[in-house]
Amino acid sequence: MGSSGARVGIVIGSSSDASVAHEAVRILEELGIPYEQRVISAHRTPREAAAYAETARERGLSVLIAVAGLSAHLPGVLAAYTTLPVIGVPVDTGPLHGFDALMAMAQMPTGVPVATVGIGNARNAALLAASILAVSDPVIAGRLAAWREKQAERVRQADEELQD
Amino acid sequence: MGSSGARVGIVIGSSSDASVAHEAVRILEELGIPYEQRVISAHRTPREAAAYAETARERGLSVLIAVAGLSAHLPGVLAAYTTLPVIGVPVDTGPLHGFDALMAMAQMPTGVPVATVGIGNARNAALLAASILAVSDPVIAGRLAAWREKQAERVRQADEELQD
Amino acid sequence: MGSSGARVGIVIGSSSDASVAHEAVRILEELGIPYEQRVISAHRTPREAAAYAETARERGLSVLIAVAGLSAHLPGVLAAYTTLPVIGVPVDTGPLHGFDALMAMAQMPTGVPVATVGIGNARNAALLAASILAVSDPVIAGRLAAWREKQAERVRQADEELQD
Amino acid sequence: MGSSGARVGIVIGSSSDASVAHEAVRILEELGIPYEQRVISAHRTPREAAAYAETARERGLSVLIAVAGLSAHLPGVLAAYTTLPVIGVPVDTGPLHGFDALMAMAQMPTGVPVATVGIGNARNAALLAASILAVSDPVIAGRLAAWREKQAERVRQADEELQD
Amino acid sequence: MGSSGARVGIVIGSSSDASVAHEAVRILEELGIPYEQRVISAHRTPREAAAYAETARERGLSVLIAVAGLSAHLPGVLAAYTTLPVIGVPVDTGPLHGFDALMAMAQMPTGVPVATVGIGNARNAALLAASILAVSDPVIAGRLAAWREKQAERVRQADEELQD
Amino acid sequence: MGSSGARVGIVIGSSSDASVAHEAVRILEELGIPYEQRVISAHRTPREAAAYAETARERGLSVLIAVAGLSAHLPGVLAAYTTLPVIGVPVDTGPLHGFDALMAMAQMPTGVPVATVGIGNARNAALLAASILAVSDPVIAGRLAAWREKQAERVRQADEELQD
Amino acid sequence: MGSSGARVGIVIGSSSDASVAHEAVRILEELGIPYEQRVISAHRTPREAAAYAETARERGLSVLIAVAGLSAHLPGVLAAYTTLPVIGVPVDTGPLHGFDALMAMAQMPTGVPVATVGIGNARNAALLAASILAVSDPVIAGRLAAWREKQAERVRQADEELQD
Amino acid sequence: MGSSGARVGIVIGSSSDASVAHEAVRILEELGIPYEQRVISAHRTPREAAAYAETARERGLSVLIAVAGLSAHLPGVLAAYTTLPVIGVPVDTGPLHGFDALMAMAQMPTGVPVATVGIGNARNAALLAASILAVSDPVIAGRLAAWREKQAERVRQADEELQD
Repeated sequence: MGSSGARVGIVIGSSSDASVAHEAVRILEELGIPYEQRVISAHRTPREAAAYAETARERGLSVLIAVAGLSAHLPGVLAAYTTLPVIGVPVDTGPLHGFDALMAMAQMPTGVPVATVGIGNARNAALLAASILAVSDPVIAGRLAAWREKQAERVRQADEELQD
Repeated sequence: MGSSGARVGIVIGSSSDASVAHEAVRILEELGIPYEQRVISAHRTPREAAAYAETARERGLSVLIAVAGLSAHLPGVLAAYTTLPVIGVPVDTGPLHGFDALMAMAQMPTGVPVATVGIGNARNAALLAASILAVSDPVIAGRLAAWREKQAERVRQADEELQD
Repeated sequence: MGSSGARVGIVIGSSSDASVAHEAVRILEELGIPYEQRVISAHRTPREAAAYAETARERGLSVLIAVAGLSAHLPGVLAAYTTLPVIGVPVDTGPLHGFDALMAMAQMPTGVPVATVGIGNARNAALLAASILAVSDPVIAGRLAAWREKQAERVRQADEELQD
Repeated sequence: MGSSGARVGIVIGSSSDASVAHEAVRILEELGIPYEQRVISAHRTPREAAAYAETARERGLSVLIAVAGLSAHLPGVLAAYTTLPVIGVPVDTGPLHGFDALMAMAQMPTGVPVATVGIGNARNAALLAASILAVSDPVIAGRLAAWREKQAERVRQADEELQD
Repeated sequence: MGSSGARVGIVIGSSSDASVAHEAVRILEELGIPYEQRVISAHRTPREAAAYAETARERGLSVLIAVAGLSAHLPGVLAAYTTLPVIGVPVDTGPLHGFDALMAMAQMPTGVPVATVGIGNARNAALLAASILAVSDPVIAGRLAAWREKQAERVRQADEELQD
Repeated sequence: MGSSGARVGIVIGSSSDASVAHEAVRILEELGIPYEQRVISAHRTPREAAAYAETARERGLSVLIAVAGLSAHLPGVLAAYTTLPVIGVPVDTGPLHGFDALMAMAQMPTGVPVATVGIGNARNAALLAASILAVSDPVIAGRLAAWREKQAERVRQADEELQD
Repeated sequence: MGSSGARVGIVIGSSSDASVAHEAVRILEELGIPYEQRVISAHRTPREAAAYAETARERGLSVLIAVAGLSAHLPGVLAAYTTLPVIGVPVDTGPLHGFDALMAMAQMPTGVPVATVGIGNARNAALLAASILAVSDPVIAGRLAAWREKQAERVRQADEELQD
Repeated sequence: MGSSGARVGIVIGSSSDASVAHEAVRILEELGIPYEQRVISAHRTPREAAAYAETARERGLSVLIAVAGLSAHLPGVLAAYTTLPVIGVPVDTGPLHGFDALMAMAQMPTGVPVATVGIGNARNAALLAASILAVSDPVIAGRLAAWREKQAERVRQADEELQD
């Protein structure tokens, strides 16, 4: 799972978030972007979280995606240990359905940003990671544009079907 | 500021939270409980946060109070590195007035609790710290009971004044 | 159910909260901490609630855990009658899914704190109770540290499985 | 302040809520309804709160109005000790502006109702108390109808002034 | 359904709220309080709503209970046409689960109060209606006290069962 | 104030909302749309509200704008008595800053819609009224298009100024 | 699906919103109002959205209904390109159940209004569209009045059934 | 204002957001990152918004920052026309203090992500833009790391001052 030479690191805090993370994996694979996946908890294995983020750049990673619910500190903890862009995916878990996680991710204090996407929207996290890589990688930029065109086409098809 | 032999460690993430923390300080001083105060940021000085919490018990601390606003990860980060009880005070800062901080503190994942008090209510954090120390310290228990009786007396006086 | 010489008193307001409370019970049993369980309602049996809290310390209890939903006054009512630390577990019950209970517990007025944990997170209440006892009890401190290490180990295993 | 033979008991948890309660007082005086005012705290003087509610009916009171902010347990605590109708006024205090108090009052568990009015709307609490007394008291019913007609007249006057 | 000589009028805005209203009916029947039930919509049959409230007192009603979801104007509309006490039950209907209805009921403007109870809590509406009637009716006061004692007894039994 | 032959009726529930309504007035005057203004309260003068809406169409009105805060029933009450389009402006009044009014307006039950605009945004209510009249009135359509172009021009000017 | 000479254009952002839009279709068909339906995404086919709105008036449309969830920009994007009235239906999709969409639709900036109806309430959008057309079309006005009377009759029937 | 050869495009919807955007400007200038600033409204000048985003990449821009309040569609509209990473800054404007804007930005539908930062936190938007550029630009990476170290140093100084 994942390729060597990973550009994107996807981190989940517990294996219960694996299915959400998998949505990101599928997009990255469609776009041919090498990634790696880890289970590291901001609170239960904080030293591993620190070490992972601290060494991320030197290990060749360019973007981190952190998936977390409830207090959802994981992306913030990673961002505290790296200057790589960190994308946070708040998870719809628990009684507040990810509203708490959205608050806990988006409202990061000045100095250490987290790029927050919609609740449960790991696909958008992957697309955002792709757009970040595409800044300096025309091949990925091309694939991303094609992916976007393909989804536009699907909307157009649905439109035609509705009219028939 | 604070006494040697501190039992309670009060941590704020930036000096802008000092006035909130001071409310806790005043209660601890009234109750004769030695404390120390630190400025350590969960996101800007995460290694110091980890080191502080990791060594807290061996340095004689019994309770940590963490004061933070917005994403408010500080108490959770400390709790990740110690098994001492950690009390979180969400701060009324920013446009959401501490509602975000309350979400980010209270909704900690299973395994690493934070004892959350009301938004901006650092005095209650100090009283909770006192009640925790009072579990094994009858002197503090006595002082806490006296403090509680004194505030009850103030309510009774206000009641009498209103009736006159 | 529960052991004599209880250190922790778990109180629920109605038997419908028993399954939530049971999560706390399981953690306390894992950690070998004697506890007792009661059904006492802040509103339907208020005199019993007052009497329970008033005599809690002398009967040897060190920490109270109150589990309640909706207006969720139970921990506050107990805290009004004792200086023992009181932990509140807001329950995910009713149409607002515990959001109301979180507000009603966390926002206690100055003078009478409640240590609020996440909605439905009775396990964290038990772990917090353990950390409070561990302040003066090295045996419990040791067990708690081991428990925490065990859960860290589970995260590491999940991480390895994901990588395979 | 207040008349002997009080029919309505207005209770505030601290003297900081006196100005809100005064809005109720003014309405009751306009309607000629005898009342009494007390400062009793649900958490700081809980025994007094219990005693006040327990003896309210026999002392001739017919309705209780409880004014409280934050966790706002006061009306619920009174209602636990009496079967008189208890009206709760959530106060706009603290960073959440009474939203927390509204949750804590309105969402009472089944069996012990609190009649909740709008945040800070002590005048409506007094009018509701009057309507309750008016059920069996035609004099108060008449005064209440006249009061309502007077305010309707004020709306009509404002309408005329706007049209001129 | 209901008795002649009704003291309490229960109004629902559509037959989809009948099951909620039925909870109130059961309590009123337990307490021997005569009631009537109507389907009248604040928005779809507004003239009927006005006429119902306008004539309520002369037809012998003493309290109105209005059950409504979403914008939940029904109790406010009734209260605009009568000085009888009007109790509002916000219904858990639609995607916001009654949170909208709670806002729309509780936040009535000054001059025309609605006694709001918890979302979906029609039983508390009936108990509140009973407490209002009990102000001048010792028989109902006695039944209400007995009902409360019975529910307290149930809590005590649950407590005993848990301890065994 | 206003012209005879009014096409738009602006209704406020109390004179305290006059300044908000004035924002709508200014837009209607800019667009040369005749209007009238009234103070009519959904709760304090409900019969006038009913009569106003019932006769609105025959008196030549085409659109109603209702401005209200808190429970904000005014537009819904008007809509119950007319099939003219009713636009609701939730007002930022009271501790919840119009959030309650937004809920109370937008969440109207099926059958009686209210066209809700943003909190306090009476100008958008007037523009929406203009767009409704413009459906069958090319003169107003032309003025509205010109107004929109003028505001676009202002954005372009601000853009140029920023670049200089 | 839909008739030529459409007066109302219903736009959904993805085919997953088709069932919500269908509620509007049914009302428009009951009222004999010609409509058309399209799938156009504000974000995935933005040029189509712009073109659709820009040419809507000249193609004979009088009102647009846009159905969207989450960030729910669709009605705002259409409104930016036309001066026709645009009605927004926030959809109950995703973990926040349309609360996000309600915010994103109702709170449009000054200058470009969206007429927002309740979450998921496409029927009210259709009725609002009908009331807009009815401003200048007495036939539709008559049908709308009849529709409203029919639903009033249904409430009266339900009332009678309940009383039997 | 701004440099030729801009890498980051900062867009505000109205000049009232200029002070928020200026916070981003200051950070970009500290980090020596060339930027440009524009006033373009998603709703009032939508064609300019489309054209700006469509040509952004070819004009050499690498990241867009969009600052907007209320319905806050600006970043989403830009993202619909480009595959460059778009960062959204919800602005604390209007009665809901940016909570509405946060919902409208973060909850973008799948396919077109917006990287949302905290309410009003334009500095974090600039730092996130810098981290994105730093993925392929070691000079910026170095400056960003130095900036982060400088702010850590400030926390350490504040810590020392508090201890003295």
